Amino acid sequence: MEGKIVERWGMLEIALPGRREGNPFTDYSMQGVFEGERETVSVEGFYDGDGIWRVRFMPSWPGEYRYTVSGTFAEETVSGSFLVTEAAPDNHGPVRTAGTFHFSYADGVPFYPLGTTCYVWHLQDDARVAQTLETLRASGFNKLRFCVLPKHYDYNLHEPRAYPFEGTPMDSSVLTPENFWQYDGHSEGNHFDFTRPNPAYFRHLERCILELRDLGIECDLIMMHPYDRWGFSCMGREADDLYWRYCIARLAAFRNVWWSLANEYDLMRDKTEADWEHYAELLQRRDPYGHLRSIHNCGPFYDHSRPWITHCSIQRQELYRSAELTQDWRERYRKPVVLDEIAYEGDIQHGWGNITGEEMLRRFWEAAVRGGYPGHGETYLREDGVLWWSHGGTLRGESWKRVRFLLSVLRDVPGHGLRYCPAEWDSVCGVPEDSAAAERTGFRLYYYSFMRPSYRVFHLDEETPWRVEVLDTWNMTVTDLGVHRGRFTVPLGGRQFMAVRIRKAEE
Amino acid sequence: MEGKIVERWGMLEIALPGRREGNPFTDYSMQGVFEGERETVSVEGFYDGDGIWRVRFMPSWPGEYRYTVSGTFAEETVSGSFLVTEAAPDNHGPVRTAGTFHFSYADGVPFYPLGTTCYVWHLQDDARVAQTLETLRASGFNKLRFCVLPKHYDYNLHEPRAYPFEGTPMDSSVLTPENFWQYDGHSEGNHFDFTRPNPAYFRHLERCILELRDLGIECDLIMMHPYDRWGFSCMGREADDLYWRYCIARLAAFRNVWWSLANEYDLMRDKTEADWEHYAELLQRRDPYGHLRSIHNCGPFYDHSRPWITHCSIQRQELYRSAELTQDWRERYRKPVVLDEIAYEGDIQHGWGNITGEEMLRRFWEAAVRGGYPGHGETYLREDGVLWWSHGGTLRGESWKRVRFLLSVLRDVPGHGLRYCPAEWDSVCGVPEDSAAAERTGFRLYYYSFMRPSYRVFHLDEETPWRVEVLDTWNMTVTDLGVHRGRFTVPLGGRQFMAVRIRKAEE
Repeated sequence: MEGKIVERWGMLEIALPGRREGNPFTDYSMQGVFEGERETVSVEGFYDGDGIWRVRFMPSWPGEYRYTVSGTFAEETVSGSFLVTEAAPDNHGPVRTAGTFHFSYADGVPFYPLGTTCYVWHLQDDARVAQTLETLRASGFNKLRFCVLPKHYDYNLHEPRAYPFEGTPMDSSVLTPENFWQYDGHSEGNHFDFTRPNPAYFRHLERCILELRDLGIECDLIMMHPYDRWGFSCMGREADDLYWRYCIARLAAFRNVWWSLANEYDLMRDKTEADWEHYAELLQRRDPYGHLRSIHNCGPFYDHSRPWITHCSIQRQELYRSAELTQDWRERYRKPVVLDEIAYEGDIQHGWGNITGEEMLRRFWEAAVRGGYPGHGETYLREDGVLWWSHGGTLRGESWKRVRFLLSVLRDVPGHGLRYCPAEWDSVCGVPEDSAAAERTGFRLYYYSFMRPSYRVFHLDEETPWRVEVLDTWNMTVTDLGVHRGRFTVPLGGRQFMAVRIRKAEE
Repeated sequence: MEGKIVERWGMLEIALPGRREGNPFTDYSMQGVFEGERETVSVEGFYDGDGIWRVRFMPSWPGEYRYTVSGTFAEETVSGSFLVTEAAPDNHGPVRTAGTFHFSYADGVPFYPLGTTCYVWHLQDDARVAQTLETLRASGFNKLRFCVLPKHYDYNLHEPRAYPFEGTPMDSSVLTPENFWQYDGHSEGNHFDFTRPNPAYFRHLERCILELRDLGIECDLIMMHPYDRWGFSCMGREADDLYWRYCIARLAAFRNVWWSLANEYDLMRDKTEADWEHYAELLQRRDPYGHLRSIHNCGPFYDHSRPWITHCSIQRQELYRSAELTQDWRERYRKPVVLDEIAYEGDIQHGWGNITGEEMLRRFWEAAVRGGYPGHGETYLREDGVLWWSHGGTLRGESWKRVRFLLSVLRDVPGHGLRYCPAEWDSVCGVPEDSAAAERTGFRLYYYSFMRPSYRVFHLDEETPWRVEVLDTWNMTVTDLGVHRGRFTVPLGGRQFMAVRIRKAEE
């Protein structure tokens, strides 16, 4: 390994031959200690099959590092050194929370998460995986929410491309759209050995994470979920611990990983709050990089005020109001609010999966102007049964096309991020979170949502010269109306989804 | 008057010459007592100008009646008799509440109020008044909400065609869209004698009420409101009492009159709760027919549980939810819920007046399926400054065209009216209010609102043959899907604003 070079927030991997007798996943240990000038990090290695053991490290600083790898996996301890260079221009490090309500990369560049969901895109065939990546490349999304484990649910009853553990599944030919919900993790006919992860399954997952990293997309990895017919949702504490440790050992060194403990944790009948707190504790102890951590609800929120939770990962709880409550959640939890499910644009039978593109985009803006971060998803019925929300593939809706425009508006906000400013009963007003930036720039963004004002009248003060712009969030246009003082009227065309952006004119 | 014939719920008027010296409106009295086999009614008469006094009576029963008219207005008491015939087929009498949550005419025919608002349509010129009546004739509306008194507000700054009292107004040439709100009932320059109503003003109002009656339209008369620059909103208790007595004497005998004590009572700074309770008491004492009574809010509701309030007249209190709360209001007040303002379809600058036709219709259905009665209004900007909400004229929106279809759906509900039945989280289900009718027919109406299911699956039971219909509430179609048993799928086309109507098939 001598002379190896890795960039800051890149990944150094040390692969060594080791024991393969018995059950290498449980019978032996592997530790790596990585020591640089500014950090010493101790991590667990993992068995990757075929007698190969690996240990991974993500350096947080440039400079000279030394390492020592030891454990019962091999006879001897191995040591060495490597050089960490400065990060490449497109590598900003892992995403952290910034201030109370926002995110930035480790290098301080603000990160405005505007994500989408494809629960098991990586478990589709190679052509579909490639297609999904191509679709993501063309989209404005910078976060993807997906499951580590296979998913069993309506429109997704086929077998995954592989299983995370050695074994064989129940006969899925018995499944129909009518009876699938009768099968769960306790279904009979599965024969999996939860003490033997399938390395190939995880290697594929890692390739997908790397592909996303290279697209600038954060991976919001859902570690557990209830939509299961193979038994992965109810393996028991000991097997769960092995699973968590194995995942952390393999995945924590990828800079674009976020940990979502669960999708719809409250539907996982076999898990208790003590379980979640235990996994959280395990994660905090074993992930030396402190990747972002949250847990996603179906009904009641998990208590997002728990210290280990870095941000709220919210599924809206009401049919009619969703993103409109963003500022309430911010105040309740005093953490960044990510609305990971505010319904899906689509036309399936379920109310959570059949809103219009207009309504999805409206929810995006409602959330964003209130200082939260909305998430997208698509559930259009297709003849081939491929739904973006589950499989990836291509996007066919309307809202996704408009996400990049919102991102450009967020990037333009002075300082870092917006907060809701109650200004008028019939608009949503966002101002810079940073009060100095707000004061200096007078920046404010008024959003009119479903309303259709032909015009609005402003009278902010008498003296200030205000730069006024009209944003059509649907047609993605910004119209500069020039500089105005005192009382002025802004024409808005009597259309939905309009916004007005005002800031002090530069003299 | 001998030999005069009037139909049941028609109006008998006795006009007599009387005193005109001094102030006839305050200096003399006139009472009429009307006695039939099943009722004896005592009412106050009124001075109609030019030395003519009138007293009016609406008989509730057919048969022979006698009357006596007395008072200081004339030297002599006058007596006589008249015959009340059965009502004509299109005369069902005044509207009453029916059961806890609904309305019917006095003859028992259900009345499903689907109204609109034109605050001062009757105070426009004759051509506009005629145009409004023609528009109403072509619409499906069966209730019109409007003000007795003139209105001063944005888009309605011109003078009314007449004033309700003798006198002269302030100079309105000073008004602009920017400054109008600085003028209110306390504005200077008005010289009205609140002790001298203008009979011609009220005669015109009555002609309008009769025109509406002949169109089958109930008049939801707003007696007081805050949008005033002439002083009518703050005349003081004594003048208010005269106004109320004069209005009741003139208007109570019209069968299609409802009393709305106020529009946005809470914005009338000169009125206290004691005032409203006083007017209510006066109204109960002096209106012998017990016309419907309510009072409309801007912000907080009046306490609709007060015994004198026959139904809730609601302005929605939130920007995002309105009709979706109908069942909550029903439960809170245990009275019929009329949503007299759920925003206006239009494109003016105010958030209360710029929703789409689709959103208006959606709110109509949300309210109706939940067992309430929605109200319409339109505020489209026009070059000529004529907005339906204030002036009447013509309708140019989309929602009004679809009201008759909703009415036909309500009339088809077994029994009388709907109630909300929590059935699924992602649809709104209404069932017949009458539990016997609900049981007998199995009728249920599922509404999908803004959602776009391509299909829905039903499995109500195994045996019952169900008649299934798909309703497109926007395109106003009913598609009969025939009879189904057990589990069945209903195609819905992936469109918004769809509904499914199911009832037991007649064998």
